[in-house]
Amino acid sequence: MARVLTIGEPMGLMVATEPKALKDVTTFRRYVCGAEVNFAVGMSRLGHETAYISRVGNDPFGQHILDFLAEQHISTDYVTLDDVNRTGMQLKAKTLEGDPEVVNFRRFTAFSYMEPSVVDTVQWESYDHLHVTGIPPALSETCRETSIAMMKAAKAHGVQVSFDTNLRPALWPSEDVMRKNINYLASLADIVLPGLGEGKILTGFETPEEIADFYLKQGAKAVIVKLGTKGAYVKTTDETFYAPAYIVENVVDTVGAGDGFAVGTISGRLEGLSWSEAVRRGAAIGALQVQVESDNEGLPTLEQLVAYQNSAKLSE
Amino acid sequence: MARVLTIGEPMGLMVATEPKALKDVTTFRRYVCGAEVNFAVGMSRLGHETAYISRVGNDPFGQHILDFLAEQHISTDYVTLDDVNRTGMQLKAKTLEGDPEVVNFRRFTAFSYMEPSVVDTVQWESYDHLHVTGIPPALSETCRETSIAMMKAAKAHGVQVSFDTNLRPALWPSEDVMRKNINYLASLADIVLPGLGEGKILTGFETPEEIADFYLKQGAKAVIVKLGTKGAYVKTTDETFYAPAYIVENVVDTVGAGDGFAVGTISGRLEGLSWSEAVRRGAAIGALQVQVESDNEGLPTLEQLVAYQNSAKLSE
Repeated sequence: MARVLTIGEPMGLMVATEPKALKDVTTFRRYVCGAEVNFAVGMSRLGHETAYISRVGNDPFGQHILDFLAEQHISTDYVTLDDVNRTGMQLKAKTLEGDPEVVNFRRFTAFSYMEPSVVDTVQWESYDHLHVTGIPPALSETCRETSIAMMKAAKAHGVQVSFDTNLRPALWPSEDVMRKNINYLASLADIVLPGLGEGKILTGFETPEEIADFYLKQGAKAVIVKLGTKGAYVKTTDETFYAPAYIVENVVDTVGAGDGFAVGTISGRLEGLSWSEAVRRGAAIGALQVQVESDNEGLPTLEQLVAYQNSAKLSE
Repeated sequence: MARVLTIGEPMGLMVATEPKALKDVTTFRRYVCGAEVNFAVGMSRLGHETAYISRVGNDPFGQHILDFLAEQHISTDYVTLDDVNRTGMQLKAKTLEGDPEVVNFRRFTAFSYMEPSVVDTVQWESYDHLHVTGIPPALSETCRETSIAMMKAAKAHGVQVSFDTNLRPALWPSEDVMRKNINYLASLADIVLPGLGEGKILTGFETPEEIADFYLKQGAKAVIVKLGTKGAYVKTTDETFYAPAYIVENVVDTVGAGDGFAVGTISGRLEGLSWSEAVRRGAAIGALQVQVESDNEGLPTLEQLVAYQNSAKLSE
């Protein structure tokens, strides 16, 4: 099994128990959310040794997150507690189908004060892979510096890097600033995972092929353009192909699908699968995740994953 | 009926449904909290024309607060919506008895950007009374300036002012800074309502009598020192006496008792009751409020209040 690092902001997640506008909901169920938390949970469930780098407030959300990570067998050695600034929070609506309304409370959170010096505390020789997303660099100047420093340090230590663009336009001062920063971060990664819509915004190109070429020219070794229910387009330095999605009859909530896809693809590659097998595993985990309410409860163990892949239908 | 103004920060309140540490709770019920919201709700339920001055985020908590105020027949003419900064939030534990654990998420909230210019928007001639607490001045420099400007404007327009010290030591840089600021604000009020413990910290005196004298010398016309289950000590420019509390067998949650006490006392005075009758009404409303989970659901209508006062037992 591989040894995997990721860095990001975890948040307290309050999910509405009734399908109403968030302003009208009476009761909420609490979970943990964050794209990179989801990634860490998924990798750990598949048996990979996973460490999560973060900073949370010393409050009930931060304390709950630390307990949750420990339960999920994710190392919290690199998670610091902040006595002044709070943990972020997200309200999520209960959807009857598809994308739920989400509202973040994440300005001036503990994580936004993350400093690049964390990079020097990491035992780089103990890790095989670093996964980074486009969210932390949108949170603050120091977070952006930290993401860049992490990716450069990984490269210097021969640690493979994946980057999920995970665009959050609301957190950037302008689309142009977002585009430049995210594309620069992508240039520091070995594997780049944009959604098709994100790729269009980031590169100005319209097709998966052109988007993949853009990032390959920037230095990536593999680009996977996510096409939602239509699967994914894969282009590496060696091969290029379209991969199918799994058919899901009952979508509960789409949040976490992309993180699940990253888990499947990266874990597959780290376990020696072909790109085709790895991306199919990514599609399977994405499909499992959209069938639950929380952002990461659907992420499977290896046994659950195999059972699903043996029974589920592909869209082709 | 009187026309009453108050100013303060409302927050989304998430109350645990299970009696566990807040970090371990799964499900929360949402309400609205804030000392001044509680005051406004209580005054409005008793039939007074009440307006609430505030600023909330344009998010599900802020929108819920606006709906809640409207349902409570509280004017929101002076509530502004902030598109950038969020509404504050509080987590509250479910207690089996007494003071619950509460944790606030209120740094850099919409309300903390409140500006003194709001004072010029108020139709002062339409109001009889302004109620202020010690919380807003602890939230930011501009909030402190706003509280001072509100109290001075009220005085200039002949509007009576009450001030509940409502100490929040965690929000102040030091106890000394808190003491100087709160005592200055108290000097701008006609009626000052400190708790006994608060009065000790603020004045350095030990007895209700000395604490009351301190604020009378500063210019107050009446001081009511709250003694919890032991009632209250009242000293005005004309009279001085101890008032009893009501006996409550089953305390659910003590939050809001002080706000209920202020509602009863101020409303009583505005309706022409004697100080003795007014403070007894305050004790009754405080007693009703500690018997419910939310911070303001126990505040009674006049009918409920009369029924309670006719049946409940005093502690003397």
